[in-house]
Amino acid sequence: MTDSIRILGIDPGLRHTGWGVVEKTGSRLSHVAHGVINVDPELPMADRLAGIFYEVSRIVETYKPDHSGCEEIIVNANPRSALKLGQARGAAMTALSYCGLEVAEFAPRQIKLAVVGTGKADKEQVGFMVARLLPRAGKMREDAADALACAICTAHNLPVRGLKGEAA
Amino acid sequence: MTDSIRILGIDPGLRHTGWGVVEKTGSRLSHVAHGVINVDPELPMADRLAGIFYEVSRIVETYKPDHSGCEEIIVNANPRSALKLGQARGAAMTALSYCGLEVAEFAPRQIKLAVVGTGKADKEQVGFMVARLLPRAGKMREDAADALACAICTAHNLPVRGLKGEAA
Repeated sequence: MTDSIRILGIDPGLRHTGWGVVEKTGSRLSHVAHGVINVDPELPMADRLAGIFYEVSRIVETYKPDHSGCEEIIVNANPRSALKLGQARGAAMTALSYCGLEVAEFAPRQIKLAVVGTGKADKEQVGFMVARLLPRAGKMREDAADALACAICTAHNLPVRGLKGEAA
Repeated sequence: MTDSIRILGIDPGLRHTGWGVVEKTGSRLSHVAHGVINVDPELPMADRLAGIFYEVSRIVETYKPDHSGCEEIIVNANPRSALKLGQARGAAMTALSYCGLEVAEFAPRQIKLAVVGTGKADKEQVGFMVARLLPRAGKMREDAADALACAICTAHNLPVRGLKGEAA
């Protein structure tokens, strides 16, 4: 009756892409794995993107998630850096979709709301709550914590899909 | 002695990604193929990106280019659209690099300079000169002409690589 559902969360970036896998069994969440994909900033841009694509594909192959979620990038005032970040995010999302996964997209404030209870939480609060919600995860880097937070947010939003009338 | 070198040029976009393949034999250029990848704007973003990745990979498999070039996106004042365009460009560049190709990047003005002789040429002039330089190409859409212009620019820049001292 209570099948487990695996969810992969991604926090994309050009140098560091965080990833985290959680498992949802009924209403219980548990930690499966997490990490950070580090890309050599000295490599040509196309190789860096292919590196992100390859590593995300490998994570999907290894942990076989049923769903995925990707953090939206906050668009700041600089279009040039938005373009570069967009390329990194594009490489990660391409890998998820190419591996057959649906990709839910969440704004940072939605993820904070799901994990901390307020959309205005800071990075430390997110890290603290990820550690509380997934005690077996242990210590981790911020990018991985953000990715696990994204996975938790994706997990919370799973049952609501298709039941829009019931959503607040 | 005069081996042919095949070059794939890409003009990336979220709805329309132009592509064009040219062959360089000695100093002679000839047309091989061109087209436009059209992505359904109703699809979720990740699926659109995976579509671009798949089609670019298929073009590489079919025409087996030795080199590739990708047009840089002009960053306008809107970071939100820069982010989206960046994602599309990221999907295309990921495919090129993942297929084992080096990806040269050129600003629109470099491409115009290579094809028309001035970095300030308009779209019509680019289309006109692409038709002049590659008479067998026939009529085509603007995105495909831009991609062939990018391939021509990549071809022109090939011999200069590694000979930086000789470059102007």
